[in-house]
Amino acid sequence: MGQMKIYDFPGGPYVTRVRMALAENNLQSLVEYVLVDLTKGEHKKPDLLAKNYSGTLPVLEIEPGLFLSECTAITEYLDNLDGKPKLTGVTPKEKGIIHMMNHRAEIELLDPFSVYFHNSTPGLGPEVEIYQNNEWGLHQRAKSVKGMHYFDSVLRKQPFIAGNTFSMADITVVGGLIFGAMLKVPIPEECDALIEWYARMQTRSSFINRVTMSNS
Amino acid sequence: MGQMKIYDFPGGPYVTRVRMALAENNLQSLVEYVLVDLTKGEHKKPDLLAKNYSGTLPVLEIEPGLFLSECTAITEYLDNLDGKPKLTGVTPKEKGIIHMMNHRAEIELLDPFSVYFHNSTPGLGPEVEIYQNNEWGLHQRAKSVKGMHYFDSVLRKQPFIAGNTFSMADITVVGGLIFGAMLKVPIPEECDALIEWYARMQTRSSFINRVTMSNS
Repeated sequence: MGQMKIYDFPGGPYVTRVRMALAENNLQSLVEYVLVDLTKGEHKKPDLLAKNYSGTLPVLEIEPGLFLSECTAITEYLDNLDGKPKLTGVTPKEKGIIHMMNHRAEIELLDPFSVYFHNSTPGLGPEVEIYQNNEWGLHQRAKSVKGMHYFDSVLRKQPFIAGNTFSMADITVVGGLIFGAMLKVPIPEECDALIEWYARMQTRSSFINRVTMSNS
Repeated sequence: MGQMKIYDFPGGPYVTRVRMALAENNLQSLVEYVLVDLTKGEHKKPDLLAKNYSGTLPVLEIEPGLFLSECTAITEYLDNLDGKPKLTGVTPKEKGIIHMMNHRAEIELLDPFSVYFHNSTPGLGPEVEIYQNNEWGLHQRAKSVKGMHYFDSVLRKQPFIAGNTFSMADITVVGGLIFGAMLKVPIPEECDALIEWYARMQTRSSFINRVTMSNS
């Protein structure tokens, strides 16, 4: 039984980012999981909104009543707990490059897939998707496909998204590709480097155990 | 003459975030400014795109040929240069809360104003705004207005966006309010705490000097 609680829904691309960050830091034993059922729209109801204004998952309760949301923020917290960051960089240059590539993975790949899902597909169903803008969603889908080509070009020059070592930015691209697979938007076959890198990522124990991790 | 170059366009809300982060760290003398004319769409042309895939400003050249983009990433870099972060937190909890509030300021206030600007107003003109989705832009404008109410509620309980001290998250909300003012979307008059806080922010020298800062 952990000292911290994670409110999440196993399998989701954003949830995966935090579960991988936890596992990469061997911190699984510090948390217990609380299921918030996305398919019932529980993340948009008052109880969760009081924990996270934006109504997104995951949320990490780091001490009773103190809630952290936003995957990058939760990752910064977890990765710095032991004073030896593994995912977020040590030097100013590492921090800068990792945060740049991490945010680029959000805005050019993961987030546009999310907008596509919520606007141009049934998403989480009519009770959750109360506003949809199909044309915008399709525009965002195209942005994510372009993003996959961009990250392929990055990986043709270096083994990981932010350089020579695994980082938070790799996890965020993994989240993007998980979302793409859910949406049946595969990696374009000409993106050899991205495909090879993703195969490597899928061998990490933090990836393999991401759905089954649970203390309950 | 600085060792680093900033490619920017004075006055822009995102550019302001980095100029304020520089000034809060007294690092102005380390940089020189290179003008990229947003009104001519220079940020969407090959020269800038080679420096930043996303085609946004500002971009910081930290050493010849090594370019950092994304305001949060640039701020992490600058704020950690002397080993004494002032804007991005020292403890894991501070880092987590600051990054959460910083990203919330982006997704709930600043970025939706940007989407509104580029989709539902003439934006940077027809040569730059080659795709617009007016309805989505209006939806994002409403999100930013709701965001102003949210940040007002935060400031009713604490003096700064991420708690008791000034941080990167305050700068990002300042960027949002600068964008709102450009778009003639004022702070709702009932948002007393946000109005009072913004008046305080405008007295900081990093805010006052944000447009005139230049080494050339």
